[in-house]
Amino acid sequence: MLDLNQIIRPTAIIDQRRVLNNIARMSEKAHKSGVRFRPHFKTHQSAVIGNWFRNFGTRCITVSSLDMAMYFAEHGWDDITVAFPVNLREIDKIRDLASRIRLNLLALSPEAVTFLQNELQSPVGLWIKIDSGYRRTGMPWKDTESIVLLAKQIQRQSKTEFCGILTHSGNSYSASSLAEIRTIYAETVHRMQTVRKALTEAGITQCEISIGDTPCCSVVDTFTGVDEVRPGNFVFYDAMQWRLGSCSEADIAMVVACPVVALYPDRHHMVVYGGAVHLSKDFLLMPERRKIFGYVTSLLSGGWGPALPDAQVIALSQEHGIIQLSPEQMAQFRIGDLVAIIPVHSCLAANLHKKYYTLDGEWIPMAQI
Amino acid sequence: MLDLNQIIRPTAIIDQRRVLNNIARMSEKAHKSGVRFRPHFKTHQSAVIGNWFRNFGTRCITVSSLDMAMYFAEHGWDDITVAFPVNLREIDKIRDLASRIRLNLLALSPEAVTFLQNELQSPVGLWIKIDSGYRRTGMPWKDTESIVLLAKQIQRQSKTEFCGILTHSGNSYSASSLAEIRTIYAETVHRMQTVRKALTEAGITQCEISIGDTPCCSVVDTFTGVDEVRPGNFVFYDAMQWRLGSCSEADIAMVVACPVVALYPDRHHMVVYGGAVHLSKDFLLMPERRKIFGYVTSLLSGGWGPALPDAQVIALSQEHGIIQLSPEQMAQFRIGDLVAIIPVHSCLAANLHKKYYTLDGEWIPMAQI
Repeated sequence: MLDLNQIIRPTAIIDQRRVLNNIARMSEKAHKSGVRFRPHFKTHQSAVIGNWFRNFGTRCITVSSLDMAMYFAEHGWDDITVAFPVNLREIDKIRDLASRIRLNLLALSPEAVTFLQNELQSPVGLWIKIDSGYRRTGMPWKDTESIVLLAKQIQRQSKTEFCGILTHSGNSYSASSLAEIRTIYAETVHRMQTVRKALTEAGITQCEISIGDTPCCSVVDTFTGVDEVRPGNFVFYDAMQWRLGSCSEADIAMVVACPVVALYPDRHHMVVYGGAVHLSKDFLLMPERRKIFGYVTSLLSGGWGPALPDAQVIALSQEHGIIQLSPEQMAQFRIGDLVAIIPVHSCLAANLHKKYYTLDGEWIPMAQI
Repeated sequence: MLDLNQIIRPTAIIDQRRVLNNIARMSEKAHKSGVRFRPHFKTHQSAVIGNWFRNFGTRCITVSSLDMAMYFAEHGWDDITVAFPVNLREIDKIRDLASRIRLNLLALSPEAVTFLQNELQSPVGLWIKIDSGYRRTGMPWKDTESIVLLAKQIQRQSKTEFCGILTHSGNSYSASSLAEIRTIYAETVHRMQTVRKALTEAGITQCEISIGDTPCCSVVDTFTGVDEVRPGNFVFYDAMQWRLGSCSEADIAMVVACPVVALYPDRHHMVVYGGAVHLSKDFLLMPERRKIFGYVTSLLSGGWGPALPDAQVIALSQEHGIIQLSPEQMAQFRIGDLVAIIPVHSCLAANLHKKYYTLDGEWIPMAQI
């Protein structure tokens, strides 16, 4: 059980049962769909939570930096994809990791692929990153000519193995309905298959398709048309995913517990110790362009309750969180109490903490990178 | 000199000479004005940079958390104000610090002041936090009756010493001109003196006035009407202060060096390794509600250049930064190069790093709290 006396400063709290349910649901969906589950560990950044995935059969993972790959490699993970464009300046880390584990990187340009061939001793797997519509990174899906050339270069080289094509449909984060998320999934798969068809026609017959974002992976019933899925945020979910419809409120598995330090009943404001350095400044846009930085709920030793209606974090400075709430809600709180804040973006909020406290009363360390 | 080969991942770079100039300018202004300089160390969070202040005569500091106070107390600072409402849940740290150093805390309510009397062995200094217009925390400056009562309670108690009244005019951050910042300063001082007058009339003759924000402290020529100043951000400044007019571009003393990982000449985008977990998601609002997350410049071994015109960080995800720039600027960069990003808010950006790299090629550790 949570020992509330142990929580003296802003603390990331996780509901272990919800985390396990989220992992179970996503890994079962992958299993039933016959696709490889390669969860993204950038959200939780913890070897302990990583081990929870092992019980569901997870054997390979995704991370977003080489430092994170080093951390998880030290904790026994030996098949890791770094889903970030190759950073040439970290070649020493790449060389080290490639000699110890199955390391997969993203290829985005012939220059970087040549660089790897020249610099590596042990081979790495390479996925060609495809821009299937998000327009952040990757080779445009329509440019099949360049993609075929790059795949051939990868195949030709002795230090690079061609794995397939990989995308992140981050555009699902701006969808306004579940139907739109499903459309983005279908469109993404269609585009990736178009690319694969071009590769097959060019004689490249071994080519897997890997997709990744949490909204699409949460919303579709089955992973048709792909070989691998890499969602990450689903392990905790958050206010943003809840609003998108990727999860229900009861799936949200992480909150930040914050001590109440000041009460302003006349303007219905409560100030907590919990600011931008504990929650991040990601926000949700509400009607009339109002920004909110989290939902608010009570915290008891058994866990947190549903979000209090109309109670929202309306401003953050470095260490302060300003919460607006109703006079009735206000009356329940005293200075020194704890509130739980449902973060807008759990990946960024978790990254600001050094450990988690579980509802079972355990402290779980995170990577210090 | 900066060894660019040592910079392999997003790295906080500081220009030591600019930092020293910023410290010199602010501490001299305080000295000439005859006020106590109690700089806020939440921005740099480093004992090494703290020591640089000592050469300018700084003997007392401000921090924003008890953990930061513990860190600086361990590094020899023995007069520290925690400029944050007392967090009752951290009474053990308060007790410990109060027994070792001169510890000053903020009083906002009779309950917290009573709590301190009941729980402390060694006395602490208490400043009454005044809300002089920012409406974040503090007793409303017009409510002199409650302020007098609280000051009398503090004076009556054996474990609390009344220091004076303290405010943070954070509203200066939304000023649209230097004239407006000066008006906020004058208004703040006037309001604080109104409160002090009420205290004097009630028989409380010893009452200092402490003010704090970097825009006001940077813009005024002399600190009239106050006894203590507590600016923090000025040590590095940033894009936000530059826009406000608190500093010139040549005063900005910190950037985040980021490796270039992808180039998209067709849409004039460059992608760098450097995202929300290295810069924070604080942004500046540009015309047409466009957000920018930093300015961009080149980085050479001698330092960084002026911000490239029209080159801006237009989006951040966890590890990615998306930079928009002109075709001519674009043509100068290759994958594997470094760029320097001038952060929007240096306090939040610095907090995301574990050390600084100086233009002299030294690595400077930060507090790990």
